[in-house]
Amino acid sequence: MADKIGIGILGASGYTGAEALRLLAGHRQAEIRWLTAERNAGQPVAALFPHLGDLSLPRMERMDAVDLAAADAILCCLPHGLTQAALKDLPRGPKVVDLSADFRLRDPDLYAAVYGAPHGAVDLQKEAVYGLTEHYREAVRGARLVANPGCYTTTAELALVPLLKAGLIREDGIIVDAKSGVSGAGRAAKEANLFTEVSEGFHAYAVATHRHAPEIEQCLSDFAARPVRITFTPHLVPMNRGIFATVYVKLKGGVRAEDLQTGLESAYAGEPFVRVLPFKGLPATRHVRGSNACLLAVHPSRIEGEAILLSVTDNLVKGAAGQAIQNMNLMLGLDETGGLDLPPLFP
Amino acid sequence: MADKIGIGILGASGYTGAEALRLLAGHRQAEIRWLTAERNAGQPVAALFPHLGDLSLPRMERMDAVDLAAADAILCCLPHGLTQAALKDLPRGPKVVDLSADFRLRDPDLYAAVYGAPHGAVDLQKEAVYGLTEHYREAVRGARLVANPGCYTTTAELALVPLLKAGLIREDGIIVDAKSGVSGAGRAAKEANLFTEVSEGFHAYAVATHRHAPEIEQCLSDFAARPVRITFTPHLVPMNRGIFATVYVKLKGGVRAEDLQTGLESAYAGEPFVRVLPFKGLPATRHVRGSNACLLAVHPSRIEGEAILLSVTDNLVKGAAGQAIQNMNLMLGLDETGGLDLPPLFP
Amino acid sequence: MADKIGIGILGASGYTGAEALRLLAGHRQAEIRWLTAERNAGQPVAALFPHLGDLSLPRMERMDAVDLAAADAILCCLPHGLTQAALKDLPRGPKVVDLSADFRLRDPDLYAAVYGAPHGAVDLQKEAVYGLTEHYREAVRGARLVANPGCYTTTAELALVPLLKAGLIREDGIIVDAKSGVSGAGRAAKEANLFTEVSEGFHAYAVATHRHAPEIEQCLSDFAARPVRITFTPHLVPMNRGIFATVYVKLKGGVRAEDLQTGLESAYAGEPFVRVLPFKGLPATRHVRGSNACLLAVHPSRIEGEAILLSVTDNLVKGAAGQAIQNMNLMLGLDETGGLDLPPLFP
Amino acid sequence: MADKIGIGILGASGYTGAEALRLLAGHRQAEIRWLTAERNAGQPVAALFPHLGDLSLPRMERMDAVDLAAADAILCCLPHGLTQAALKDLPRGPKVVDLSADFRLRDPDLYAAVYGAPHGAVDLQKEAVYGLTEHYREAVRGARLVANPGCYTTTAELALVPLLKAGLIREDGIIVDAKSGVSGAGRAAKEANLFTEVSEGFHAYAVATHRHAPEIEQCLSDFAARPVRITFTPHLVPMNRGIFATVYVKLKGGVRAEDLQTGLESAYAGEPFVRVLPFKGLPATRHVRGSNACLLAVHPSRIEGEAILLSVTDNLVKGAAGQAIQNMNLMLGLDETGGLDLPPLFP
Repeated sequence: MADKIGIGILGASGYTGAEALRLLAGHRQAEIRWLTAERNAGQPVAALFPHLGDLSLPRMERMDAVDLAAADAILCCLPHGLTQAALKDLPRGPKVVDLSADFRLRDPDLYAAVYGAPHGAVDLQKEAVYGLTEHYREAVRGARLVANPGCYTTTAELALVPLLKAGLIREDGIIVDAKSGVSGAGRAAKEANLFTEVSEGFHAYAVATHRHAPEIEQCLSDFAARPVRITFTPHLVPMNRGIFATVYVKLKGGVRAEDLQTGLESAYAGEPFVRVLPFKGLPATRHVRGSNACLLAVHPSRIEGEAILLSVTDNLVKGAAGQAIQNMNLMLGLDETGGLDLPPLFP
Repeated sequence: MADKIGIGILGASGYTGAEALRLLAGHRQAEIRWLTAERNAGQPVAALFPHLGDLSLPRMERMDAVDLAAADAILCCLPHGLTQAALKDLPRGPKVVDLSADFRLRDPDLYAAVYGAPHGAVDLQKEAVYGLTEHYREAVRGARLVANPGCYTTTAELALVPLLKAGLIREDGIIVDAKSGVSGAGRAAKEANLFTEVSEGFHAYAVATHRHAPEIEQCLSDFAARPVRITFTPHLVPMNRGIFATVYVKLKGGVRAEDLQTGLESAYAGEPFVRVLPFKGLPATRHVRGSNACLLAVHPSRIEGEAILLSVTDNLVKGAAGQAIQNMNLMLGLDETGGLDLPPLFP
Repeated sequence: MADKIGIGILGASGYTGAEALRLLAGHRQAEIRWLTAERNAGQPVAALFPHLGDLSLPRMERMDAVDLAAADAILCCLPHGLTQAALKDLPRGPKVVDLSADFRLRDPDLYAAVYGAPHGAVDLQKEAVYGLTEHYREAVRGARLVANPGCYTTTAELALVPLLKAGLIREDGIIVDAKSGVSGAGRAAKEANLFTEVSEGFHAYAVATHRHAPEIEQCLSDFAARPVRITFTPHLVPMNRGIFATVYVKLKGGVRAEDLQTGLESAYAGEPFVRVLPFKGLPATRHVRGSNACLLAVHPSRIEGEAILLSVTDNLVKGAAGQAIQNMNLMLGLDETGGLDLPPLFP
Repeated sequence: MADKIGIGILGASGYTGAEALRLLAGHRQAEIRWLTAERNAGQPVAALFPHLGDLSLPRMERMDAVDLAAADAILCCLPHGLTQAALKDLPRGPKVVDLSADFRLRDPDLYAAVYGAPHGAVDLQKEAVYGLTEHYREAVRGARLVANPGCYTTTAELALVPLLKAGLIREDGIIVDAKSGVSGAGRAAKEANLFTEVSEGFHAYAVATHRHAPEIEQCLSDFAARPVRITFTPHLVPMNRGIFATVYVKLKGGVRAEDLQTGLESAYAGEPFVRVLPFKGLPATRHVRGSNACLLAVHPSRIEGEAILLSVTDNLVKGAAGQAIQNMNLMLGLDETGGLDLPPLFP
């Protein structure tokens, strides 16, 4: 197996770490070299994730017990905040994809305002490349450190970036009404995420204050004629996986909803993971469950000069571990789809 | 029991009929006189709804086999379309609350455009009073025939009517992003509503084409300075009950989100079933499950001059059978809350 | 309101406490006098349970801050283990129904073996009456302290007691395969009860070691010709409420399954909360959701001389708060059904 | 691709057909040659199963429009009853794995008694080999027609066969208390399988009369010292996928539960899809979701001389399409695990 790419995972005890393991099990050119989990050091993966019990995997270890440089690529699944400290001292050899929010915002002041503390690794922050693969592909290919986008943000950005880039929609008036499965909240034991508190119900949270809004704005502004400011409302759906974004946009003068359809189709022609449904199509999160796909659809609005975009992803795959592997593949010069060719699981 | 109000239910074999029975079981001034269900005539209620097996209820009969005039009030739970024909020939004695969509739109042309066929009982259509109780209370009190509002529409209208009436929000740019539990689709056996097709997923449907949009517009226009046209997107949530509406509005000049809070609070002061949460509150459908309550909350937006309203109801109660009983109580001169004082069921 | 019975609730911050509040809101002869919750002292109920926000309820207080004797009856919803200490020093005036497991087992040695520590209030343990209402009614009526049965145990015992009492089934070979909703695990934040860990899956736990087995055996032995020892396997169902017990029994010589049907029907004739379905009936937990009902059914087995019993309850009602109120009503000389006449909620 | 094995699927419009397509997408030595679906002929797979929209698949056709002989192997996913007629006239070239119940029972009289009609293809019935792969492997390898076992039966049989074969448990007194996800009921639109009728609840069905009981008995009797008759109770769990069997057994003289553990471990050593958990392990259906795995565990009982077995599978994979592909691989001389190496999906 000497010719396989060696992967290390920092923080393998959460859902995104486990999802990376699931996907990498089918990656023919990669193998897991080491796994860390501070509190669960010494345990086999199957003790935390019995569904992975059939895989041959190294035990989890403390971060200071592994040879970090022994990996060609590192997926960092540590919690927000802790990641900065952990990545600051990494050897510079391995490529790194960070799944936390720590390196997504480029402006240290904005970071401090949004996350409530100054950034602890400003140099790394400058070096990091934002990993919305389809739209930053060349930068990702050359990067050493990729900041993997959030799940809400990926889902919203894939719908909006091509339309802003092509000047088809206005920069103002964008509303992202987003709905997420519960796995986005992680595996930490919190009352709010108990089955009894989530099932058979629906609610919004962090209305107008969610940290993904500035991230979406940063990305959209990269491709728009002028800075973009959005309305963003996240909601919690009683399901494990999936993000559904209903996006309300205003058309630029003379543009029709059909033009958005054409714009998305041409932007994503040939893309392996983004599929534009026929005009007025109805994507569902269950159509992408477990896969790296993003499905997009365009609908005309009842209001002249407006349109509605629908975008779905699996928050743990295209919204986390899947896109991370997609980025890692690019950074290592591998086929971009390696480990990511699983069809969705339905029902 | 001679002094109890006698109730008849047309079409008692669906979820709204069963919900009316559940609520009326606790109504001290009402009793069920007859129940109809064409295909299930002759059966006891418990054969269709085992959860009601402890109640003493008459058997279901064919409509032509019951003495319709023997009821003081009739709740009509027949399907859309069939209702017009059924109500045309009713004796004029009993008060009627119709839970279908047949009498909600006042304009016969609009009705024909939305429902794809001319209205079959235009005279009744003219007579019908729209039953959003809190805002048409006096008209309901004097009505013989009330058109009970839809579930999506009730939830959206309760949030918007007072703000339009007070001139706090603009008539344009209103977006209602609504999410519903599955019971809103009724009990008919359809592939799309199978457990396997709905659970562990989320999707939008009838984007920009749902029939509740014109109904909402008619009601809002009643209270606004000029005709209102809205954007309305319904979604299906893997839960049995509940409607959650996230409503995006634009503030009139000089108005702040806090003013919407005050406006809603004063509009609903003293209302038994509408509760305005503290500013930036987070209602959840599970907080109203099984009850006639509507919870409202106001949030400032990240965008200057805009605000976000949250509104939740139980689609089978305030969105159907509960509001129907509320209207019936009014029409009969009873206490408006009769049969409707059940606290929600959680978890 | 001077003529209403005053109720105090110890430990009102959990699901059983909240469920007692929901039920007591409809109890015409009772009112809440005080509520305790150590960690949430000072908070209104609505802060913990927004679904109860429309009720007029006292704030939660520390136990040492309330006048315990000001209540005619106390429902104790404290955690297992803590209850012994709390109840030891209660004033002897109020009637007490304890919903914990602390006073269910009569034998101090058995208690110590099952719960891993000696009992801390052996005198109270002796005084306590086991509160399976239908079968200990006279003792409950005269009791000062009732030990309210567990949810699994109530569901199993209601099916088995009359058959053992009538000598229709053998004392050996009883298997209780039980399935519970998640609310039985309480509101504590535990990884195992997260939505993501429970939904879309099924598993057994505490196989052959669950603490409800000795409790069931103690009760069954009270009514059987000789000590009973059972097999008991609990499972977790991805639903909020409900217990379903599938009970395998061996018939005594000459007895047929039809005789079990007759036996149960005659045992429960006139009982307000236990309903025996027709022979081979199919009860479901959703038929009792939110109500104090227990539904029972008898099925013949494919094996000669054996039969299968099905029993369902709502674990938070007949399995906890509902039966507690039923017992409290008896102890206070009230109508046994006070506060318990709510029909189930479906769907 | 001339060297790939060509697969045809009869009845590709149901969940088992779709699941076969999902799995075969990852099978490196197989490709889909044709798909039939009478009522959906002419449609692409994605019209029925949007989650498979990224796969390159032939359109569905009527059975009489495809060249049946063009396939090396045929997976028959037609409904019970229809299958006999369809398979009678198949060309004898292709290997056939039938996923219906039509060829599982060997005795025509038993078939007629269980299915209510005489068998329509008795010669084929005689030819068919029962496809519980791990225990009929050599017969499967040489078969032309394999009757793929049912989902309940696979799950129960994998736990019991080795223990009966080794004489560790008694042939009498076996109780299989089984719990299934809803996808086992297929995609037909039935009221009983609506989301609203299934979610947030639990019930038993077909108590002591389910057709899988005789199938289990036939298989167990193949490996037991004398004919086996079992008690079998199926239940419906509000989840999409998964079978959980709780199996109660009586030990032969001198045998301990630990011996069952050893017996299962040695029976399944080296098996790629059956994993015996450590003694007293707790498998969950979510640990095998989407995979061909079966997890087994042994627990001692509270009753001397008895034990409890736990067995879980995914009903659509090891209980249907997965085991069918496993059998097909064997029949074609391919690696038995081809297309079946996907790890489970969790959460």
